[in-house]
Amino acid sequence: MTFNLRARLTAEFLGTAFLVAAVIGSGIMGERLAGGNVAIALLANTIATGAALVALILTFGPISGAHLNPAVTLADALERGIPWREAGAYMLVQCAGGLAGAIIVHLMFGLHWYSFSSHSRNGWALVLSEFIATFGLLSVIWGCSRLRSGTVPFAVASYITAAYWFTASTSFANPAVTIARSMSDTFAGIRPSDVPPFIVAQLAGALAATFLFRWVVPNLPLHAEEVLVPHPRA
Amino acid sequence: MTFNLRARLTAEFLGTAFLVAAVIGSGIMGERLAGGNVAIALLANTIATGAALVALILTFGPISGAHLNPAVTLADALERGIPWREAGAYMLVQCAGGLAGAIIVHLMFGLHWYSFSSHSRNGWALVLSEFIATFGLLSVIWGCSRLRSGTVPFAVASYITAAYWFTASTSFANPAVTIARSMSDTFAGIRPSDVPPFIVAQLAGALAATFLFRWVVPNLPLHAEEVLVPHPRA
Amino acid sequence: MTFNLRARLTAEFLGTAFLVAAVIGSGIMGERLAGGNVAIALLANTIATGAALVALILTFGPISGAHLNPAVTLADALERGIPWREAGAYMLVQCAGGLAGAIIVHLMFGLHWYSFSSHSRNGWALVLSEFIATFGLLSVIWGCSRLRSGTVPFAVASYITAAYWFTASTSFANPAVTIARSMSDTFAGIRPSDVPPFIVAQLAGALAATFLFRWVVPNLPLHAEEVLVPHPRA
Amino acid sequence: MTFNLRARLTAEFLGTAFLVAAVIGSGIMGERLAGGNVAIALLANTIATGAALVALILTFGPISGAHLNPAVTLADALERGIPWREAGAYMLVQCAGGLAGAIIVHLMFGLHWYSFSSHSRNGWALVLSEFIATFGLLSVIWGCSRLRSGTVPFAVASYITAAYWFTASTSFANPAVTIARSMSDTFAGIRPSDVPPFIVAQLAGALAATFLFRWVVPNLPLHAEEVLVPHPRA
Repeated sequence: MTFNLRARLTAEFLGTAFLVAAVIGSGIMGERLAGGNVAIALLANTIATGAALVALILTFGPISGAHLNPAVTLADALERGIPWREAGAYMLVQCAGGLAGAIIVHLMFGLHWYSFSSHSRNGWALVLSEFIATFGLLSVIWGCSRLRSGTVPFAVASYITAAYWFTASTSFANPAVTIARSMSDTFAGIRPSDVPPFIVAQLAGALAATFLFRWVVPNLPLHAEEVLVPHPRA
Repeated sequence: MTFNLRARLTAEFLGTAFLVAAVIGSGIMGERLAGGNVAIALLANTIATGAALVALILTFGPISGAHLNPAVTLADALERGIPWREAGAYMLVQCAGGLAGAIIVHLMFGLHWYSFSSHSRNGWALVLSEFIATFGLLSVIWGCSRLRSGTVPFAVASYITAAYWFTASTSFANPAVTIARSMSDTFAGIRPSDVPPFIVAQLAGALAATFLFRWVVPNLPLHAEEVLVPHPRA
Repeated sequence: MTFNLRARLTAEFLGTAFLVAAVIGSGIMGERLAGGNVAIALLANTIATGAALVALILTFGPISGAHLNPAVTLADALERGIPWREAGAYMLVQCAGGLAGAIIVHLMFGLHWYSFSSHSRNGWALVLSEFIATFGLLSVIWGCSRLRSGTVPFAVASYITAAYWFTASTSFANPAVTIARSMSDTFAGIRPSDVPPFIVAQLAGALAATFLFRWVVPNLPLHAEEVLVPHPRA
Repeated sequence: MTFNLRARLTAEFLGTAFLVAAVIGSGIMGERLAGGNVAIALLANTIATGAALVALILTFGPISGAHLNPAVTLADALERGIPWREAGAYMLVQCAGGLAGAIIVHLMFGLHWYSFSSHSRNGWALVLSEFIATFGLLSVIWGCSRLRSGTVPFAVASYITAAYWFTASTSFANPAVTIARSMSDTFAGIRPSDVPPFIVAQLAGALAATFLFRWVVPNLPLHAEEVLVPHPRA
């Protein structure tokens, strides 16, 4: 089944908004309740993010492909899974959705509707972390979506759950979410000036994985809905 | 396979009773053992609730649709998935089952069989949280059940696991459970006077998502068992 | 595919041994590392037990049905899923496997190979807890196995994960595991004199659920391998 | 679909590298944040490792079988699932991938690119633990892959999640990962001189399970891709 572009953009907007709400909101809640133990706060943040990804990709996958991430949309466009024109629209609504999610979550927690983060995240180690994190994310997506698309929601959620802990940057791996997190001076925030190197590293990691898997799992160029969406029979 | 109404109401009663027992019971156990660290208590509460939802929706889904929630039944009736007359019966047994679950769990933990909660949960931030929480829950249900019904148990459980942390209210999102929780002066309780605005917000959120998805994923009016029940082939 | 009785008994022996090892071993490890926070120890115990159940039921389910629990075998025999004669053999090797698992785990942790538990678990609240815990377990098994057998491993593991927290007894729900736990003076232990009322309550709960589901989901008497085993197509 | 050897070796290299990164990286992050509570650090380590296994086996399973473990490759070669010549190549790239993963993770966390571990792990209790851990791992693989291959990623990840807690050695169960962990003086490290008995125990456990399951689930010698790979239809 193919959905019209307006429905698909609505799905990308809602999905990214809920994803950002899950990331920022669980960070706020975790930090408030954890009594200073950062590992417990991050554990809550991890579980909430992983669980949200399962729910959101299952919900919006059949509609829009549930990219929820400009790096994924870029990679998909490179592989001709989505026309460039639509890819641009996807990326725009992903960024807008992310900001909407940040605003909503601030209101839910009784905070001012936005606040620039002062959480410093810089240095080569973190930039390398974002490269690896997004390289891994796209490897998982290309590996699963080309050969076993029904498993994508679980594979992506599991990957991010792990990557929160095995990368030094806690694995943002998503330009739209990174931008939204710069607007939140909370646990999950990132100082606006640290955003550009994160995004560059994310896009580089996404491209590297895409070119690698073009060679490892070739000749399976599928239409976007079929590539990235767990099939209905699953 | 269609079950007669009595079997389906039994399923809704048992399912909601176990759901409330999981929510309240794990809150009691978590608070008793966590030594004052609220994040750890909420983590236990979250994991128990999410796991209970997987088990209960898998168990009772094929029988009654495993609504276990008047907001879900209301939305389903609006979409003509269940006749209004049966919907009323569903909601009644859900509320009764929730109270039965609260009583049983108090007895298991050696407490008086009921106690009105003194846990204050009020203010616009929490009401907004309940609107968002239930809007998201119904989005997940409509998105998955119309396109990939076998994934509903995992999507709903994952969504609630995340929403416990990303909403300021810890995501009650269920009028029957909210009422039952007002009868328990424990970790998961809610002061009876705070219940009405929670329920109004939950129903408003459910309606908003239902109308939105009527537009996003239209023309798939299915019979209740097929809409909300993960199909047996999954 | 039907396996001969010897292969099936081997599966029940190994499966119950690993289940008991997971329960007792993770209790020892959790208590040693948690620095006195019982909630964290129980969280580790819960996650290890739930994960072990997923792995063990997936592994041994297609061979023996992966009962791993005399209460399940009794219920299955009542429903004519397994001949009484084989049921007796199943129960014996489950108990033997449980004891073997306890011994192995003590050796792995450098303890004496057995030790009678001094962990007192008595009183009506705990007996009620065991009744409810096993009633719920068999409800999940009958609900899923009759209508959607491929989901049993996930439903059972999720149920037990939740029940560890929502029952006051931490949900033993298994006579063979209860006996084995009485031989371990560690976190998961139970004083031998408290075992009999636990087992009576477990069997009563199993019978109650079996009779209830005979009415709710009738006329589906299947052969044991088909009833309790997630089918290979899943 | 059969992939050429170069693509399969690439998959084994990448998969093992990410697996080691997950194990070591989450150990570093967990220890840094947990404020001295080892149970919380190990919980983070466990969740990250289990989640990584789900993602990696789903991603690389259809390509190379996702052994990611010389003990698995050895067992598969014994059962004629993979030619000995290819098995040797698999084992080499697994070890190389593991070392690459260790190096990358050290760089991400701003550490020197390698450091010999001083973490002592010796004694018969730990050697027994590794025997049991790997015996269980191969039991899960043979049980699931021969009868229900689509469940392998979830069964293996669940098994390792449990085994981190129920064995005294935290269940390395993988020679390539063991070697890589000896090059990391961090939470997950192991003193190089303790590596040989671990590997011997792991191989012995793998062989014992393989011979046992040759008898329990016989006459199903399948080609490697079919044996160990969750099938695409799942």
